[in-house]
Amino acid sequence: MELKNDLIIRAAKGQEVERVPVWMMRQAGRILPEYRKVREAAGSFIKLATTPEMAAEVTIQPVDILGVDAAIIFSDILVVPEAMGLPYEMIEAKGPNFPTTIQSHDDLKGLNTTSAIDNLGYVFDALDIVKKELSGRVPLIGFAGAPFTIFCYMVEGKGSKTFSKAKKMMFTDPELSHSLLQKITDTTITYLKTQILHGADLVQIFDSWAGILSPQQYREFSLPYISQICDAINEAPVTVFAKGAFFAREEIGKTACNTVGLDWNMDIEESRKLIPNKTLQGNLDPCVLYASFGEIEKQTREMIKAFGTQKYIANLGHGVYPDTDPEKVKCFIETVKSY
Amino acid sequence: MELKNDLIIRAAKGQEVERVPVWMMRQAGRILPEYRKVREAAGSFIKLATTPEMAAEVTIQPVDILGVDAAIIFSDILVVPEAMGLPYEMIEAKGPNFPTTIQSHDDLKGLNTTSAIDNLGYVFDALDIVKKELSGRVPLIGFAGAPFTIFCYMVEGKGSKTFSKAKKMMFTDPELSHSLLQKITDTTITYLKTQILHGADLVQIFDSWAGILSPQQYREFSLPYISQICDAINEAPVTVFAKGAFFAREEIGKTACNTVGLDWNMDIEESRKLIPNKTLQGNLDPCVLYASFGEIEKQTREMIKAFGTQKYIANLGHGVYPDTDPEKVKCFIETVKSY
Repeated sequence: MELKNDLIIRAAKGQEVERVPVWMMRQAGRILPEYRKVREAAGSFIKLATTPEMAAEVTIQPVDILGVDAAIIFSDILVVPEAMGLPYEMIEAKGPNFPTTIQSHDDLKGLNTTSAIDNLGYVFDALDIVKKELSGRVPLIGFAGAPFTIFCYMVEGKGSKTFSKAKKMMFTDPELSHSLLQKITDTTITYLKTQILHGADLVQIFDSWAGILSPQQYREFSLPYISQICDAINEAPVTVFAKGAFFAREEIGKTACNTVGLDWNMDIEESRKLIPNKTLQGNLDPCVLYASFGEIEKQTREMIKAFGTQKYIANLGHGVYPDTDPEKVKCFIETVKSY
Repeated sequence: MELKNDLIIRAAKGQEVERVPVWMMRQAGRILPEYRKVREAAGSFIKLATTPEMAAEVTIQPVDILGVDAAIIFSDILVVPEAMGLPYEMIEAKGPNFPTTIQSHDDLKGLNTTSAIDNLGYVFDALDIVKKELSGRVPLIGFAGAPFTIFCYMVEGKGSKTFSKAKKMMFTDPELSHSLLQKITDTTITYLKTQILHGADLVQIFDSWAGILSPQQYREFSLPYISQICDAINEAPVTVFAKGAFFAREEIGKTACNTVGLDWNMDIEESRKLIPNKTLQGNLDPCVLYASFGEIEKQTREMIKAFGTQKYIANLGHGVYPDTDPEKVKCFIETVKSY
């Protein structure tokens, strides 16, 4: 199926585009009343994410309602550790919780690696449905967590401000840490390749907890695994978004990725200098969408002016916040599209 | 009372020192069994912080037990909003909670500003006791939260990963935000000056949530108020520690502060270049103290080598984590002192 709107793919590949493409992290879910209706019918977040028809429906909603230039599959980065053998529950207003975690070499033995994707059929089914229903209107984005971020959850067992238990393992047993990171990496490569087989036109790697590492730690425990994934994925463009890893921008830019995502802490001009050869994505503070329509337009236009219109994919610097007015989101998207 | 060990003061002023001075954020409390005994007797964190004899005791403990080159008064940045009129409770394993928050101009009217310090007598009493009991052995550090960080709590009412409610006010009502920030600033200046009157030899400003702002937002909502405080405090050296504000290092270095604190994300050599004229403080990842004694020594020595021995105060890049072995902490401190 040929894409009718391939702006994001061309931008990711560094090809010329006639206007700046735009999508939003967390666009599927949270802010739309149409999403909340499906979410309620599903009963739980995990039920919604694991029911292909429902996941497909909320994936397509923002394309229809908000007019974004891509769909991103509705899923969760934690389906990978679950498929590897660590089930989790999503506790309302608290976040994810893993009853079992990895603490020893013995714990590693029970983990699935590449066979883990046999447990992820519901994601591939959802991709198939979305792909069919989109009929090439816009590209479909697949994704996975970066190995370091997944490692954090598999060791810590839940969200944390510091992930000090996960980091403790890096210091007390680097060998075990690297073994686990490699297993996650192998699984993630197979997972992303299979997403592409099922229609993902571009894949994004989310290193959500990159910012808790020092530059040296990042170089040892995160970057090599991201780099392995970028080297392995040749079937579709790859975006790397390492939130908080301002110190690693230059090195991320030197991996085989196509696009580097920026958060709103990262100065645009400085980032262009540090990452001269890649497409950049980002980086409006999601809180700007609380401002007036006029202010949103102003800040969005300033952002595009700073990035330039080529080798650029407009986005927020993080996922859209749940209490954002959809009309404000539309204002952001329309401002990009009419620039 | 003349100081017998004034290494930190001389380092802060850019004067020559014969060895690198060292202290640790959160050194008073958390990790020491001696602290936990007093904390238990107090019954609650707030009771401990508001009982001068007890607060003084835990302030001095790390000087005796760990051999640090300064004491820092045991207190909490949230005593300032409390003294301004917003009481808070500390919920075990959850953090602070403010039943009343600031949401409107009307809410501002009821706040105390400079008169707020009348409610903080227990801090000044604790400083008096510490000062007397230290007998000049080491300097005493006073502190306060940066106005932006205090603003976050006064509007959001509790801790948050994004502080999106507090930031929402910055976007929907910048005038109200600036009024509140100015009130906090005025209170903080009076508070720090009074701490110095009661014996604080150096004061540190903690901008704990600096990292949630974009460079432009930081320039508008945080830096000007920190700068006002630095300009107003001439009685003792001032340290500014803005966690996560890597993008503002150069500008923080241009305020009238004496020392700039760094977290472990911030590259040491790059920071020296960005802040050429100030003393630097930091920045070992607290998680390094989970490593072996040999690894702690190695990383501490590498850190000092990168900073150099002058215009430098050794510290962690954030508060020490509660589950850190005191022997590992001693290893860090001894490694600095014997460098």
